[in-house]
Amino acid sequence: MPGAATPLRLSPHFRETPVYTSPPRRLHLNVNILHSGFVPSAWRLPDADPRAFIDVAHYIRVAQIAEAAKFDAVFLADNASIADQIDFRPITALEPTVLLASIAAATTRIGVIGTASTSYNEPYNIARRFSTLDHVSGGRAGWNIVTTADLGSARNFGRETVPVHAERYARAAEFTEVVKKLWDSWEDDALVGDKTRGRFIDTTKVRPVSHHGKYFDVAGPLNLPRSPQGHPVLVQAGGSADGRELAARHAQAVFSAAQSFDESAAYGRDLKARAAALGRGPDAIRILPGLTTIIGSTETEALRRRDELVDLIPWSYSLTRLAGILGLPVERLELDQRLPDDLPLPGGGNGNHTFFNATLAQARNHGYTARQLIRALAGGGGHRVVVGTPEQIADDIERWFVGGAADGFNLMPDALPDGLKQFVDGVVPILRRRGLFRTDYEGSTLRDHLGLPRPVSAHPAGQEAAVTA
Amino acid sequence: MPGAATPLRLSPHFRETPVYTSPPRRLHLNVNILHSGFVPSAWRLPDADPRAFIDVAHYIRVAQIAEAAKFDAVFLADNASIADQIDFRPITALEPTVLLASIAAATTRIGVIGTASTSYNEPYNIARRFSTLDHVSGGRAGWNIVTTADLGSARNFGRETVPVHAERYARAAEFTEVVKKLWDSWEDDALVGDKTRGRFIDTTKVRPVSHHGKYFDVAGPLNLPRSPQGHPVLVQAGGSADGRELAARHAQAVFSAAQSFDESAAYGRDLKARAAALGRGPDAIRILPGLTTIIGSTETEALRRRDELVDLIPWSYSLTRLAGILGLPVERLELDQRLPDDLPLPGGGNGNHTFFNATLAQARNHGYTARQLIRALAGGGGHRVVVGTPEQIADDIERWFVGGAADGFNLMPDALPDGLKQFVDGVVPILRRRGLFRTDYEGSTLRDHLGLPRPVSAHPAGQEAAVTA
Repeated sequence: MPGAATPLRLSPHFRETPVYTSPPRRLHLNVNILHSGFVPSAWRLPDADPRAFIDVAHYIRVAQIAEAAKFDAVFLADNASIADQIDFRPITALEPTVLLASIAAATTRIGVIGTASTSYNEPYNIARRFSTLDHVSGGRAGWNIVTTADLGSARNFGRETVPVHAERYARAAEFTEVVKKLWDSWEDDALVGDKTRGRFIDTTKVRPVSHHGKYFDVAGPLNLPRSPQGHPVLVQAGGSADGRELAARHAQAVFSAAQSFDESAAYGRDLKARAAALGRGPDAIRILPGLTTIIGSTETEALRRRDELVDLIPWSYSLTRLAGILGLPVERLELDQRLPDDLPLPGGGNGNHTFFNATLAQARNHGYTARQLIRALAGGGGHRVVVGTPEQIADDIERWFVGGAADGFNLMPDALPDGLKQFVDGVVPILRRRGLFRTDYEGSTLRDHLGLPRPVSAHPAGQEAAVTA
Repeated sequence: MPGAATPLRLSPHFRETPVYTSPPRRLHLNVNILHSGFVPSAWRLPDADPRAFIDVAHYIRVAQIAEAAKFDAVFLADNASIADQIDFRPITALEPTVLLASIAAATTRIGVIGTASTSYNEPYNIARRFSTLDHVSGGRAGWNIVTTADLGSARNFGRETVPVHAERYARAAEFTEVVKKLWDSWEDDALVGDKTRGRFIDTTKVRPVSHHGKYFDVAGPLNLPRSPQGHPVLVQAGGSADGRELAARHAQAVFSAAQSFDESAAYGRDLKARAAALGRGPDAIRILPGLTTIIGSTETEALRRRDELVDLIPWSYSLTRLAGILGLPVERLELDQRLPDDLPLPGGGNGNHTFFNATLAQARNHGYTARQLIRALAGGGGHRVVVGTPEQIADDIERWFVGGAADGFNLMPDALPDGLKQFVDGVVPILRRRGLFRTDYEGSTLRDHLGLPRPVSAHPAGQEAAVTA
């Protein structure tokens, strides 16, 4: 059984029956630049700098490694409050759009995808920042659309309670609509720049958006010309029904969380069916599950690295984190017992469904105790962990990609930059030998890398006149 | 009479009686990176690229010229709506914090000051973005605190009216308080990073801010360690009584608008008296008036350059802009008549006081017609314009600096990068020969350049306990 906890022992039969569609699908690889790495103890490794999480040079180094390997993009998560248990590990700290602009300035081709919440921002500001990031990066920006579910964040924005799940997603859906309208408020050729006639902008090609909705009233237009990609790439990560609807309607890439091939394949089928029902094509969305890699030159060495990293995490930390994902008081977990049987969705259905479901499935499928589950998750939560040699990890990636369970992966190496370096030096060459991963960029924008078209403006010339006539 | 419209014909008497305080005051020079330059027609010059206003390479080039000349900082204005009359000239388009991160990545010493409005943002988000900018730039960030007065912006954020002036400034004052509390929510040494003991952050040195005010309820702490400067430099530009109070309480630098030496000196005295009344020292605030420069190798050549630039601006554009600053219907202005006598503060006192007062004073002092005023303002509004040789401009700067009317200037060259290049090549060497401007940076942070101390945390260890005891 391939998967998270045990080393990979795959039959290679799937390689004999590849199911490429036409045009050939391309494998996509992003790297999640999660401070010192995915494993909470990564900062304690001998070569790690504990200050890396606030050091722009660290993030640039990681991005440059990924760009040299021709990855599609770097990805940054975000929070709007301080995390728990910061006494034990680094946090998501630097604001993504500012950090990604720094990274974009030190790279030339790799995409830069940042998370920004629809819960505690205004659509005009977010439309502007991501459009700016698209301009300054020459068309490499992506926006990961999230809602914010934690009480700590709510209390940083004047609220004493978290908006309910459906409400958060309803706001997110309208927020995204407004952002897209603002991105389309300038036609691509609105900038004239005719020095002789003194005509700078053709104002007939810059139009208000006049949005009046349940959550937002936004006049527009944006005060910024349409960006190189037209729209920065829209990314979504939610696994709930509401999250899937949002992704089906808007996302071009999804960072999913799935512990098993079947689960991921089913997720992809569901999402593509939802997208088709909304009139989007079968190739509209890239499914990119999170994947933590722990690599060794032998299987035994990889397992030892995982265990060493896990043993550097206090068990009390890991138990508390697991309890948080499961929405339980930590007292209900015992390290050497299986998880309780009755586990409802956390927060009365108002928490993070994605990680809850993935983590619970992992425990149930393997019959793990809490300790075994924590080890299998490498101290993390929700995302799949593969432990093995470069060959074994390439096998796993190929199986998922060729079998249709993923269009690529959002890699979360155990430690940064070392774990990424191991992946790039060990796994990428194997993927290339198998014809699975690009040897060079074919275009200059993130949309080029992902094989996505540049959207035409939703507000072509004359439409405004037609509407107001 | 030195000043805006006429070339400078200064007596050099002031150079014989310099009034340096001890330690020697240092002249500060920032450059306002206003897209193609201050004069609205700058984009029509033969060497100008009309796309410069959305081209990160243009802004980086300007910043690098300023850094090579050892300027204190680059400065970016901002808007939250599209400007009027974009058919004739470029606009402030790219979002400042993202653009400044790009600039910081391409420079090493120059400060990066960006505008962000307190009217349509949340303090937690602004605290985080400017702290991030301070981290990624190694301590070079500054935040220009503004309120937003235009209806277009209001309508991009769900409002049909502009909040009244006093209300905007009350919100700005509380907003700034919250931002400073958040910046102080981590002590400087909260990050431990002890790999052996597995202790990452000393949580006793990270405290909530627990702010409950009229406009904001913010729990905190910030999810980001204290930045290199402790606080990014606080900059303010308002000339109204409310704006002065905000500056007196919080600002370390003020970008003022003054057309005459006496006006600027009086402004500085008033501001420093207000600051003193709040317990701040006489050296707490740098007064940096805006200064547009139009430079020629002879006076005649400089005047010709100004007139050529002004003649490239449609008069209808300039009249409309002037009417906007004065809060008048454009029909009330006649090109060859003086301004009307009865001019109340625009927007019933709810508009931009600073530019109104400076512009009106300029017209009244010289008895200008609208056409003469527009020429004197080089088609702009509010800020002082000097036209002359490098020597004349250096004389003007020295007179204001030595006489105490300014601690330096926020330069707004007529065209970018050319006008800045002329200033750096022509004026800076003269200022250096006179011992007025640095020949190299003495420190690495913007506070170092401005001669400002790094603020100690307002929340030292134990205070929280004392408050809650």
